[in-house]
Amino acid sequence: MQEQQHFLDKCSYGLYVITSCDGEKLNGQISDALIQVTATPARVAVSICTFEYTHEMIIKSKVFGVSVLSTSADLKFIGNFGFRSGRDFDKFKDVKYQFGTLGCPLLLENTTAHFEVKVIKTIDLGTHTLFIGDVQDGKIVKDTDVLTYCFYKEHLKGKPHKNSPSYRE
Amino acid sequence: MQEQQHFLDKCSYGLYVITSCDGEKLNGQISDALIQVTATPARVAVSICTFEYTHEMIIKSKVFGVSVLSTSADLKFIGNFGFRSGRDFDKFKDVKYQFGTLGCPLLLENTTAHFEVKVIKTIDLGTHTLFIGDVQDGKIVKDTDVLTYCFYKEHLKGKPHKNSPSYRE
Repeated sequence: MQEQQHFLDKCSYGLYVITSCDGEKLNGQISDALIQVTATPARVAVSICTFEYTHEMIIKSKVFGVSVLSTSADLKFIGNFGFRSGRDFDKFKDVKYQFGTLGCPLLLENTTAHFEVKVIKTIDLGTHTLFIGDVQDGKIVKDTDVLTYCFYKEHLKGKPHKNSPSYRE
Repeated sequence: MQEQQHFLDKCSYGLYVITSCDGEKLNGQISDALIQVTATPARVAVSICTFEYTHEMIIKSKVFGVSVLSTSADLKFIGNFGFRSGRDFDKFKDVKYQFGTLGCPLLLENTTAHFEVKVIKTIDLGTHTLFIGDVQDGKIVKDTDVLTYCFYKEHLKGKPHKNSPSYRE
């Protein structure tokens, strides 16, 4: 018998690599928890687990990069950002990227668009912090289909990460 | 020539009817700006334009309902919630719904899941307010495909609303 889905699993999300920097150190992690919160100025919010190395970097640098993944991303590519800690491993070693004007790495492969964000508000939510910020320059990298969290689960058979805000035991 | 998409249009969202109440008065509006922000406790955030009647109700009642739309919703159904003001029109007149335990109307048609939220934080973002709250009881209404903002634009040929956080001129 198929397990009954949780009602919150019916919410739709994209999949993003959220990056940041601390001097020459770079890191990035997968997130499904990003929305645009205002149009003028263009602002987004992202929820990041307080245990994450990327969280530590965003708190310090007050900037983050967003790379919107495309359906060309496979589990190995996603796993590089999603299931290893950047504290003891350089996630950017074998990945094509460029630096944004704020200093964040922005992906150039398996990515349909990317942009940088300057944090203006930091909301403590216990296990996670909600970072709200102004969108800076960005661009379409390649006009491909976007990778949704639903596609990741259903087609790539990807597993949720325990630090994700939408994780369910 | 096809117009170049904006890089922020590559972000993926679901489509929701966000409802609230003020005594016996009910209202609801379409939103694409909802994410889960923590897993334990289950919390979500939604960005609502300050001009909206639903905004006025959530500020007062501190509760809102979320109905996750399914692909069975047509433009007429969406337009009832999306392109008319509830100040001079009862949006629930011809719609099947039930009340949640917090008093918000929760849709029973063209809806795959619904739940209620008790607001715990209100973040002023200028044109919009971000309401963050604890998810209360919810359920799967019908296990159908969810309506994404992408499906709304591409298949239903739906237009963005000027009060949406992801609206672009």
